Amino acid sequence: MMKKNCIGNKQIKEQNGCPDCMAYHGGDVYRNDVSLDFSVNLNPLGVPESIRQAALTGLEEVTQYPDPFHLELRTAIAGCENTDPERIVCGSGASELIMASVHAFMPKTALVTAPCYSGYETALKAAGTEVREYPLDESLGFRLDEGVLDQITDSIDMVFLTDPNNPNGSLIDDCLLTKIVKKCEECHAVLMLDECFLPLTDASPSYYLRMQDRLHNMGTVLHLRAFTKTFAIPGIRIGYIVSDDPETLERISMHLPEWNISRIAEKAGAAAAGALSDHSYLNEATGMISRERTYLTGELEALGIKVYPSDVNYLLFRSVPGLYEKLLGQGILIRRCANFHGLDESYYRIAVRRHEENEILINTLKNCLSAEESE
Amino acid sequence: MMKKNCIGNKQIKEQNGCPDCMAYHGGDVYRNDVSLDFSVNLNPLGVPESIRQAALTGLEEVTQYPDPFHLELRTAIAGCENTDPERIVCGSGASELIMASVHAFMPKTALVTAPCYSGYETALKAAGTEVREYPLDESLGFRLDEGVLDQITDSIDMVFLTDPNNPNGSLIDDCLLTKIVKKCEECHAVLMLDECFLPLTDASPSYYLRMQDRLHNMGTVLHLRAFTKTFAIPGIRIGYIVSDDPETLERISMHLPEWNISRIAEKAGAAAAGALSDHSYLNEATGMISRERTYLTGELEALGIKVYPSDVNYLLFRSVPGLYEKLLGQGILIRRCANFHGLDESYYRIAVRRHEENEILINTLKNCLSAEESE
Repeated sequence: MMKKNCIGNKQIKEQNGCPDCMAYHGGDVYRNDVSLDFSVNLNPLGVPESIRQAALTGLEEVTQYPDPFHLELRTAIAGCENTDPERIVCGSGASELIMASVHAFMPKTALVTAPCYSGYETALKAAGTEVREYPLDESLGFRLDEGVLDQITDSIDMVFLTDPNNPNGSLIDDCLLTKIVKKCEECHAVLMLDECFLPLTDASPSYYLRMQDRLHNMGTVLHLRAFTKTFAIPGIRIGYIVSDDPETLERISMHLPEWNISRIAEKAGAAAAGALSDHSYLNEATGMISRERTYLTGELEALGIKVYPSDVNYLLFRSVPGLYEKLLGQGILIRRCANFHGLDESYYRIAVRRHEENEILINTLKNCLSAEESE
Repeated sequence: MMKKNCIGNKQIKEQNGCPDCMAYHGGDVYRNDVSLDFSVNLNPLGVPESIRQAALTGLEEVTQYPDPFHLELRTAIAGCENTDPERIVCGSGASELIMASVHAFMPKTALVTAPCYSGYETALKAAGTEVREYPLDESLGFRLDEGVLDQITDSIDMVFLTDPNNPNGSLIDDCLLTKIVKKCEECHAVLMLDECFLPLTDASPSYYLRMQDRLHNMGTVLHLRAFTKTFAIPGIRIGYIVSDDPETLERISMHLPEWNISRIAEKAGAAAAGALSDHSYLNEATGMISRERTYLTGELEALGIKVYPSDVNYLLFRSVPGLYEKLLGQGILIRRCANFHGLDESYYRIAVRRHEENEILINTLKNCLSAEESE
């Protein structure tokens, strides 16, 4: 459980992270000297100019309250998702919507995979939920398998799945997903499908069809989406849930604070919805990610490192312990994965970035490993 | 209960507000044609340049995740509040902290005053809390009186008080407040004291002493503060709770989403903490507010309107029904108060703005009322 307040007492002093903060994340450029951050997984193309300009417009309007109904924003998102504004609820990043959904359903028991993004457990633990874990199989590259179906029972109130999964990046098989949706419906379990990284997968050229097909064929599923990764704007905080079940969305809305989205995020989010429709931008991004992922995988494997299959802009790999500290000594931050359940200190996750940055990572890595060998 | 999603179906069509949205607020410039907004109560001096510049810096850093521990921000706030960062928890506006506090304590029964800011009830209803109301006495100008003490009993888990109260603007008597704190402690009731408007009261020249004295002499009280009104930045979303009880703050933190504050709000908030220490800015603001409140009160009373005593930058008054619509027809938005419990459609609240704006309001009001008389 991440404890916001413990930082003042413990974390700063210990530098390596507060022992209570099990859910510690990447991106901590605040307590590390970082020149290249491979620990967060953002679109390597960066922020589209249209979003930057819209955020500036929002900044000029900060003396007005944001619209508590998010009408402009929801209309824009509905446009790019080909649905109605009533099918959308907006949050200050996906993390706010995870917390609000847990507060809305107060599940007694919930199912997650191990490993997975720790934010589900953080929210579930706050609500006193018993969290059950379905261990993903290392020999399958941590790809979700049919065994998960047996874990979805009447005693499970809520299921969290990430597609593609974090930290390994493998997509959920479409047939399996259909079976999971059916099983959740049979067991009356709320399924939250975290698709925040989906626009950056190889599936992305057919992204719209896939997303819309999912939306209209998955009944009560809560599709959690965000602009954070897709447009490299984690500092703005803007996410949404899209679902064909307005009653459920209504219930979640009640647990969101009024004016939960800043005026800047409202404007930037509406522009992001427009940018999502710009296929050329997403195609360029996913093309670059695919090429660079192949490059990174090849280079890492040439160094004798085990790399797990990924469909998106990050790679899980396994190497010697201590690599995190060595790379950080060179100003490169990667994600150490020891606090992902089911992984240990030999696992690391890196973002797929621009070619010149990926080259620096590989060269620095080579130096670290050869220094290790000669020690 | 405000329903975010009903807007798409109902509110837009009905224009006058969704009947389900009992907690409808001021500031709706999104569905009204407004040239002067007297419905929200912001510092008439506007946004200090230091905050605007800091927000711009934050905007340049949106490709990085905000600090989930808010260390820079909490350190800055601790500086101006003369306390430690461990005594502070930050939220995306006060409204997020109200919701998180309710989720943290899940009170069975809570006490509020009538009238008061509706956001407490919105959060409490979401949590299924029974809300009891202590009716404020119109003949006392809706100023909080000693009768409230009898309502704080063992069956009350949480008490929400606003100082100064909204919509009337009267401060809580210091001796009464001390008694309330003592009674809450005896009854093990959590007291959330909403002081978001306190820096804009007449008490403000002695603001620091008052705030710090309160903090260190009120044990477990949760002091809810925000920069929204003080620096006219409702679009940025930045508030905090300061308390001498870190364990309680820890509990609230657990119910806040990770990265709940945008990078823009982090930077703007740190600058706002600095601006709070700038006594000359606050003194200029409270001086202007005091003068203009006297002007507005005099002009309204000269029109035969009943005005309630206020210590801050807004005024509650009572006049003929229909005034809201008439002023809106002239591009002036005021706060109609019919949805405040204990008030009806004859009550209105106006912000104290700059002199030239207040003159426009008074002149337009005169025209509306004389047109009414000649009808």
